[in-house]
Amino acid sequence: MIIVMQPNAEQQHLDKVVKRVTEAGLKVHLSEGKQRTIIGIIGEKRIIAELPIAAMSGVEKVVAVTASYKLVSREFKPEDSIIQVGGIEIGGSGIAVMAGPCAVESREQLMESAMIVKQAGAQFLRGGAYKPRTSPYAFQGLEEYGLQLLAEARELTGLKVVTEVMDVQSVGLVSEYADMLQIGARNMQNFQLLKAVGRSNKPVLLKRGMAATISEWLNAAEYILNEGNYNVAFCERGIRTFEDFTRNTLDLSAVAIIKTVSHLPIIVDPSHGTGLWRLVRPMAKAAIAAGADGLMIEVHPNPAEALSDGPQSLTPQNFEELMAETAAIAAVLGRRMA
Amino acid sequence: MIIVMQPNAEQQHLDKVVKRVTEAGLKVHLSEGKQRTIIGIIGEKRIIAELPIAAMSGVEKVVAVTASYKLVSREFKPEDSIIQVGGIEIGGSGIAVMAGPCAVESREQLMESAMIVKQAGAQFLRGGAYKPRTSPYAFQGLEEYGLQLLAEARELTGLKVVTEVMDVQSVGLVSEYADMLQIGARNMQNFQLLKAVGRSNKPVLLKRGMAATISEWLNAAEYILNEGNYNVAFCERGIRTFEDFTRNTLDLSAVAIIKTVSHLPIIVDPSHGTGLWRLVRPMAKAAIAAGADGLMIEVHPNPAEALSDGPQSLTPQNFEELMAETAAIAAVLGRRMA
Amino acid sequence: MIIVMQPNAEQQHLDKVVKRVTEAGLKVHLSEGKQRTIIGIIGEKRIIAELPIAAMSGVEKVVAVTASYKLVSREFKPEDSIIQVGGIEIGGSGIAVMAGPCAVESREQLMESAMIVKQAGAQFLRGGAYKPRTSPYAFQGLEEYGLQLLAEARELTGLKVVTEVMDVQSVGLVSEYADMLQIGARNMQNFQLLKAVGRSNKPVLLKRGMAATISEWLNAAEYILNEGNYNVAFCERGIRTFEDFTRNTLDLSAVAIIKTVSHLPIIVDPSHGTGLWRLVRPMAKAAIAAGADGLMIEVHPNPAEALSDGPQSLTPQNFEELMAETAAIAAVLGRRMA
Amino acid sequence: MIIVMQPNAEQQHLDKVVKRVTEAGLKVHLSEGKQRTIIGIIGEKRIIAELPIAAMSGVEKVVAVTASYKLVSREFKPEDSIIQVGGIEIGGSGIAVMAGPCAVESREQLMESAMIVKQAGAQFLRGGAYKPRTSPYAFQGLEEYGLQLLAEARELTGLKVVTEVMDVQSVGLVSEYADMLQIGARNMQNFQLLKAVGRSNKPVLLKRGMAATISEWLNAAEYILNEGNYNVAFCERGIRTFEDFTRNTLDLSAVAIIKTVSHLPIIVDPSHGTGLWRLVRPMAKAAIAAGADGLMIEVHPNPAEALSDGPQSLTPQNFEELMAETAAIAAVLGRRMA
Repeated sequence: MIIVMQPNAEQQHLDKVVKRVTEAGLKVHLSEGKQRTIIGIIGEKRIIAELPIAAMSGVEKVVAVTASYKLVSREFKPEDSIIQVGGIEIGGSGIAVMAGPCAVESREQLMESAMIVKQAGAQFLRGGAYKPRTSPYAFQGLEEYGLQLLAEARELTGLKVVTEVMDVQSVGLVSEYADMLQIGARNMQNFQLLKAVGRSNKPVLLKRGMAATISEWLNAAEYILNEGNYNVAFCERGIRTFEDFTRNTLDLSAVAIIKTVSHLPIIVDPSHGTGLWRLVRPMAKAAIAAGADGLMIEVHPNPAEALSDGPQSLTPQNFEELMAETAAIAAVLGRRMA
Repeated sequence: MIIVMQPNAEQQHLDKVVKRVTEAGLKVHLSEGKQRTIIGIIGEKRIIAELPIAAMSGVEKVVAVTASYKLVSREFKPEDSIIQVGGIEIGGSGIAVMAGPCAVESREQLMESAMIVKQAGAQFLRGGAYKPRTSPYAFQGLEEYGLQLLAEARELTGLKVVTEVMDVQSVGLVSEYADMLQIGARNMQNFQLLKAVGRSNKPVLLKRGMAATISEWLNAAEYILNEGNYNVAFCERGIRTFEDFTRNTLDLSAVAIIKTVSHLPIIVDPSHGTGLWRLVRPMAKAAIAAGADGLMIEVHPNPAEALSDGPQSLTPQNFEELMAETAAIAAVLGRRMA
Repeated sequence: MIIVMQPNAEQQHLDKVVKRVTEAGLKVHLSEGKQRTIIGIIGEKRIIAELPIAAMSGVEKVVAVTASYKLVSREFKPEDSIIQVGGIEIGGSGIAVMAGPCAVESREQLMESAMIVKQAGAQFLRGGAYKPRTSPYAFQGLEEYGLQLLAEARELTGLKVVTEVMDVQSVGLVSEYADMLQIGARNMQNFQLLKAVGRSNKPVLLKRGMAATISEWLNAAEYILNEGNYNVAFCERGIRTFEDFTRNTLDLSAVAIIKTVSHLPIIVDPSHGTGLWRLVRPMAKAAIAAGADGLMIEVHPNPAEALSDGPQSLTPQNFEELMAETAAIAAVLGRRMA
Repeated sequence: MIIVMQPNAEQQHLDKVVKRVTEAGLKVHLSEGKQRTIIGIIGEKRIIAELPIAAMSGVEKVVAVTASYKLVSREFKPEDSIIQVGGIEIGGSGIAVMAGPCAVESREQLMESAMIVKQAGAQFLRGGAYKPRTSPYAFQGLEEYGLQLLAEARELTGLKVVTEVMDVQSVGLVSEYADMLQIGARNMQNFQLLKAVGRSNKPVLLKRGMAATISEWLNAAEYILNEGNYNVAFCERGIRTFEDFTRNTLDLSAVAIIKTVSHLPIIVDPSHGTGLWRLVRPMAKAAIAAGADGLMIEVHPNPAEALSDGPQSLTPQNFEELMAETAAIAAVLGRRMA
């Protein structure tokens, strides 16, 4: 941490800051310039993070130098992590594809969807049994019956099931049915939920919050790893900006950044990331080219009848073409559709 | 709802859209222009909200005309709502002031804080027993012991207690100690938690999510009212923007907007809204001038020793001056510090 | 400036950075921690700003400590500046009010507007002769004839004229008619234009760019002062965010920030800042309460006939009420409508 | 255009709106619902755009149905446009690559850069002779001497020259040296400049403003085409968001959107779009995969010595690798590095 004192800071204020820091067991390095003094702080990261220096008299600003996360960082583990989900790998040379409807609506809809995405080459079936919806009057999901249908679809197709868990109480129940637990964007900083899935033995897919910085996202993952669960994959799904042509602005630079600072895998959801089915295929190709380890794609047998997110769902035919196109890009990069 | 067809939409696509809408029991009004056809949809709001028209062939875009919330709207209840919290009113001619430390840190700190804010004229003591923190390694709060201290401070001072509840499981426990339940910004779309406090009999303070539109915020409140709890007040606390001088951008226009579209009261938190104690007093005055029904202010006996949010906490003296200044503004508007 | 080296930076990379800095005539202070080395740089601000250190091997990041602007800062001039515009002061104890139509549309409309705003107590007439419009097919202004009408309105009422200049070539012409030159939001970083008005002898009203940080805004003003023109006032007019209820998000914390870091006055434009006439009055009151030195308000004799920005223009009666309300707030703060 | 009346709108207000619209020569279609009336407006787009309906009594909101741009749209010209720049095509099956230093710094630096990028396969040399800089004290470019060096580099290598023009007065001068005129992000809505390059006979590269919506960007291009110059290419270079890891957030969905709504070509600048050289290669690959017609890349013989934007410039070796990688992606899509 670096403390920048005000230009006119009094000596007594400087002394108090130095006293506060050294009493906490940390070391200081003073750089006294013509205009102002700068104090470098060296020592244990967790102790530094607790220091309330910015509120002290004479302090202009405090600059963090080291990140507040540790277990998720490449400094902690330089080589790529590969997550195992029931025999399927996420983060190796393969590309993991998770596809299916936004919401589980009925047995017929789900089984048909599952067979379509299996046929096209996906390894995971996605589909929400619990749906977070802006309005209380919108369809909220089939709940446990939806989970049962997902498990049935797994029996039918062999696809692994990834589905959202929305609260601490449901972690046990959802874990009975799912192969991978999804934390949705609105819950990225639901810290009790992060801790709860951190104590479960299921792999976790952590979506980025719609206004979350990459640093906050890494810290959210740190909550999970800190509880002992190291099987975490990130999912970029767009951030909120002023642009209103798309539902969100898909931030593909996040893929390259996560690859640089963390050892954990990252996949991309261009369906929520754009909100428009016409953009899903080009953005899926771009995601793979940027280095993503997988894709999450909304596919519906009949998007015009979907109970949620129809406008961003692909038809079966569009999804097949997406798989062929992204496989070609992956091959160029020395990867294959897992 | 208005459906805008593509310029080159085929007749069969138009026919299908009309069929889909009328089969749902809704009425259509066609406007056929030279370039394109526009379809107005009339009928029950909830049925309209469920229609997946945007995914149909030939449709360019769908424009919502009516809001998806109802109970929170001024159309539903034209006169201002006044929330009762243990005999204190929020939303009438008085200005409600909630003040205290960010986090409950110790008995000494809390009792001292409570006496300071009581003395200066606040009616509510704020203070977190459970703290949502970006990093898992930061101070997370005293939990139930913190709640006990808050209750003790109420005994000592007569101040009402407002404190955050972070998960469904804790709603019962926090309700035993608090007079008003706070839903934090990160949980504004934690729908299970919204439903849970909606089923409690405690008044709720609903903070705005850091990337929440005003429409989403109103819908979040609708979740609470829809469960039967009508004692809800909004709290503007800044939104996330590109500006990095402040921690958030305090959106005071939200005050005037909420007053226009909803009957519920709204207060403002300039401490989180700016993140800088120097800005708290001018923004508190501005909030009252904009029409806010109250303020939430971080006050700490010694900000430089605070375990969280020291840089945005006021000293006791600064808080006293804030109270005097805002009282003068309130008086001009025909209001008083309640 | 502070240079943070990577944790694994080699000694030779550190040496090269130090060599580069010292060769530029600057001093370094090394803080060698367990994990990484931090280098503080001390010396002439302009030389530091030119150093391309961030691209050197082994460097993780570079943190600026001192601002890149100087003449606009309070460090340079601690006391408030008062701008003189034809005998009217901006920045003293008075509140300057600039009002009038968005665009000059006709002699009748402008003279009527001028008399209305004069009558209600404004000191400045605003009105665009050149209008920056998103679409090339929208009304672009009356150009020089508009300027002539503004001058005529000044003769009629004694109001000072503030109007936008959109390009370098027009600075001379607009200066012949106007008392104060306005730089619009879209031109805040049109550096040639900033330099041109910096070389003119007219006071300048510098609107904030819609995505400009406060730091960039201060630097834009620095361009003007650096050419010798110290008569600059800022105008906050809203920034672009994800919120779509309002046209922009009015950032009133910018008022308090500018007052802290700069000696120059700042006024607020709640008409563009919200885009909705219903919000103009509450936001005008809030702006004054936050410490603004003035207001810019769109007033139109008949908003429903305005050729631009009708939805955000006040009727004459609404404007009169705004003046009375803000005068009451100003009085509380020891200020008067100038 | 669609007019949504307030739920309680009076008949007289409805009548006035209808009268206003029909007097302008437009047709109305009324949809009278139980709660409110909706009015569809049909007729000439330019007349509709001028109507100030939103300010009329009883009107809740106005929804634009058709875009305000025309010449840039695919409706106006369904097939892709191919821009010719001195024999090089932008927008066909080839990928156009523009590379070189951020700023022209010296003959040696520019000639070396030109030979490097030529060697690696680029067709265009980029480099600024006039540099828009946040601070007036930063390097502002070599001006006309810089242009002369660019022309000399063209002689040497055969590369086409693309360089920024910052003001109307310089359009003639820059046109004498450049093959393509670049409009920078800060000038995207400098409408006088847009008109001036629209009257020149040089192809134009129009960068996206850092807070510009795609709709505003299309309108900015419309200004140029409306003056008779149809040789316009877009350049996505990142937008401003809350994320601070990168300098800007590169919005690759803009590529797919522009391809859908416009016939004009679009290239991507991942150097400014991220601000970090480590992200340039993955984002360049992603841009091509998303369908971009070209790339603009900052390359510097020695980034650590660059006078501007060193941290985002590639070394010669990195640029060669980028060219090889993107060529492989392009080949998969049936395109070649032009």
